[in-house]
Amino acid sequence: MGEKVCVIIGFGPGLGTAYAEIFKEAGYDLGLLSRSGASLDGAEPTDTSVRAYKCDAGDPNSLKGALASVQSDLGEIDVVIFNADLAQFGALEDVSELQFEQSWRVGALGLFATAKLLGPQMSERGSGVIIISGATAALRGNVWTTAFAPSKSAQRTLANSLAKQLGPKGVHIVYLVIDGVIDTKDTRTNFAPNESDDFFIKPACIAETALMLANQDKSAWTFELDIRPFGEKW
Amino acid sequence: MGEKVCVIIGFGPGLGTAYAEIFKEAGYDLGLLSRSGASLDGAEPTDTSVRAYKCDAGDPNSLKGALASVQSDLGEIDVVIFNADLAQFGALEDVSELQFEQSWRVGALGLFATAKLLGPQMSERGSGVIIISGATAALRGNVWTTAFAPSKSAQRTLANSLAKQLGPKGVHIVYLVIDGVIDTKDTRTNFAPNESDDFFIKPACIAETALMLANQDKSAWTFELDIRPFGEKW
Amino acid sequence: MGEKVCVIIGFGPGLGTAYAEIFKEAGYDLGLLSRSGASLDGAEPTDTSVRAYKCDAGDPNSLKGALASVQSDLGEIDVVIFNADLAQFGALEDVSELQFEQSWRVGALGLFATAKLLGPQMSERGSGVIIISGATAALRGNVWTTAFAPSKSAQRTLANSLAKQLGPKGVHIVYLVIDGVIDTKDTRTNFAPNESDDFFIKPACIAETALMLANQDKSAWTFELDIRPFGEKW
Amino acid sequence: MGEKVCVIIGFGPGLGTAYAEIFKEAGYDLGLLSRSGASLDGAEPTDTSVRAYKCDAGDPNSLKGALASVQSDLGEIDVVIFNADLAQFGALEDVSELQFEQSWRVGALGLFATAKLLGPQMSERGSGVIIISGATAALRGNVWTTAFAPSKSAQRTLANSLAKQLGPKGVHIVYLVIDGVIDTKDTRTNFAPNESDDFFIKPACIAETALMLANQDKSAWTFELDIRPFGEKW
Repeated sequence: MGEKVCVIIGFGPGLGTAYAEIFKEAGYDLGLLSRSGASLDGAEPTDTSVRAYKCDAGDPNSLKGALASVQSDLGEIDVVIFNADLAQFGALEDVSELQFEQSWRVGALGLFATAKLLGPQMSERGSGVIIISGATAALRGNVWTTAFAPSKSAQRTLANSLAKQLGPKGVHIVYLVIDGVIDTKDTRTNFAPNESDDFFIKPACIAETALMLANQDKSAWTFELDIRPFGEKW
Repeated sequence: MGEKVCVIIGFGPGLGTAYAEIFKEAGYDLGLLSRSGASLDGAEPTDTSVRAYKCDAGDPNSLKGALASVQSDLGEIDVVIFNADLAQFGALEDVSELQFEQSWRVGALGLFATAKLLGPQMSERGSGVIIISGATAALRGNVWTTAFAPSKSAQRTLANSLAKQLGPKGVHIVYLVIDGVIDTKDTRTNFAPNESDDFFIKPACIAETALMLANQDKSAWTFELDIRPFGEKW
Repeated sequence: MGEKVCVIIGFGPGLGTAYAEIFKEAGYDLGLLSRSGASLDGAEPTDTSVRAYKCDAGDPNSLKGALASVQSDLGEIDVVIFNADLAQFGALEDVSELQFEQSWRVGALGLFATAKLLGPQMSERGSGVIIISGATAALRGNVWTTAFAPSKSAQRTLANSLAKQLGPKGVHIVYLVIDGVIDTKDTRTNFAPNESDDFFIKPACIAETALMLANQDKSAWTFELDIRPFGEKW
Repeated sequence: MGEKVCVIIGFGPGLGTAYAEIFKEAGYDLGLLSRSGASLDGAEPTDTSVRAYKCDAGDPNSLKGALASVQSDLGEIDVVIFNADLAQFGALEDVSELQFEQSWRVGALGLFATAKLLGPQMSERGSGVIIISGATAALRGNVWTTAFAPSKSAQRTLANSLAKQLGPKGVHIVYLVIDGVIDTKDTRTNFAPNESDDFFIKPACIAETALMLANQDKSAWTFELDIRPFGEKW
């Protein structure tokens, strides 16, 4: 086992996998939480430094249960990457009350449950990092973000509140404002099939910045930063 | 009956009453929605231009039922003042998952349910106003706003999304960033018993600004503005 | 002479004229400052309640001289509308150092000089209003706002600093974030010749909101608000 | 000579020196621009990879002259750290027109002159980095930032405009929102003599983050991020 443990809440192909690979390479043991319980491609079942857990990030009990299992299996959690997100887009008429709620459940309540469980432990240890995959929708609503913007903005101001509470106790909270389309099989196929490479954010590059932030000295912490491809119109 | 109808969601003493008085004076019929079903002090039971409805703004069915009753009793709704708010303050350890959820239910889901019901009607008529009593917590989290900030920021970016969707159809959405302590019996007694008059925002002054905004010509609409007492530190 | 005096710095056709008309109608004597020294169309030379002054808002001495003349002619200044602006648009290669500087001189240094002269007087009286015609460029830069955004953002944070300094002394500072194209002969002809009426902001509607803000009770002041046409994409 | 050249505009003890040391260690040749013409402590006069230039960042000709000398001595400039700043603090009555102007000259006009000279060259090469030492005052004014906030906010929206113009051409613009007191001899002695180590931001930690940002892959660039000590109240 490595010396440090990183949990990725909302593991999956694309960004979740990029986070996993970069933190694994940096020597972290990994706890991968997802609805499907998937593990890292190519991870040997015998590799006890990578473990997958099935859970629903929108259900506090399910989430806290999985986090407890990680702690029992791998030990104290040093870094949490909160990457869970429903990413539901639609105008007012497209979004049901249920979808509006589920979007908030995963994005905001899930982060709250994570902080309720791990915040006090990290505070007591005087260390810990929670990095959240955010979005520009956290800052403003738009026509297609009737459910997404409220979920992400709730997540961001919660993160901001946590940063001010837990920062002085040595716990580093980071909010990544990801502004652009991440390069995944899904976005290449369904969302932006005709775009060139330059249009997309490479997941590995987000993950590299996240790792750097996880290593920042506490005299100079970043709470929030934007990430976008060089050619993005903004 | 007057020519126009104003509904106040989250009616009560203090700001709710100030909104009611100022819109009544401006000739609006009033539908007053609150958990207690209270009516305007001094309103005669025989005064059919002021009607009170009991409902829970955090329960979409209850809220939509009350709004339908208003429409049945008073006719089409011209102005909605969304003033419902749990105003729960506390650090991470003080806030339960239930409180975190209820805060969001009233502040964000309640506004969503209101918009689901009235947005399409107002859009079809090509007119309507929805004014939301917001707060600075909508913009950033703080130590004591673990539940409040996520609720208000979800409300604000939802309002922002609605403004962009419904504005072009003639529906005016306004978000008031109320930054300070409102002068009420409760805040005078419990929250700031030793402050002078200058410390507080007079509810009637917020309501006057709201009325002015409800009357803005659609060539020059305001979406967002801050309101604070002149001596406030900010 | 009326009871109150309003000075418009950067008077001209369009918005400047709309401010003048609405404040005149509200009973204010007017001091109109502009590079050309133009007066309100239709104002009788014998009407001593409207006076025009030639000055360069980018030259502190010229500006302070004109303000002193207003005070000598009309008495103490109650309301200042700071409407001066070069509105120079262009990319990096289009803007010279001189243009970059002039843009700042008029937008930011002019407001500073105004505040240096009138701020202490208004503070001593315990009353006064300074309303600034701002723009969305005050909040962020864009490709075409190489000179305009730095000028407007300097103006906005100066206004913000003034609000925090002078507010507690009874002086109300307001920043209007005008987000859209104002309906003037010039914009209709040169900037947006093919747009319908709905595309434009009516100057009179901005001026009405400004008058309302000038009348806000000091228990509930607004520092900043946005103004845009209902159909604006934002 | 190294393979890459980094210029620090506004070199000096404290943060300027930290930038110099970290970029030197990363293999950059250094051009150090300051009013005094100081060089890096301990740099051998025979070390041609570190060169000092005397210039006034508030005077475009002086600044462009020094940058031309760097190019002539060291070759093409890869990274610019724009660290020049007068950091003048004071209320309205404390700040003269001259100080207000000088603050803007160094912070905003200096960056503009730098971009006018280097922006087209970097664009043509398709690469280059400009990192600006910013401040929270860029986002809002405060009582003591009558001159500082307008200067920093002009600098920030200029940086924002440059990012949108030059980003698509491969030039990375970064704005560091430094929120706290940097640990230097001067701040320890004069500004905060009684604070513990935890109160201060270590210059080397800001510089490390800057180096990481200079190395970001262009598919995932950061324009803006905040940096503050873990215990900072914000």
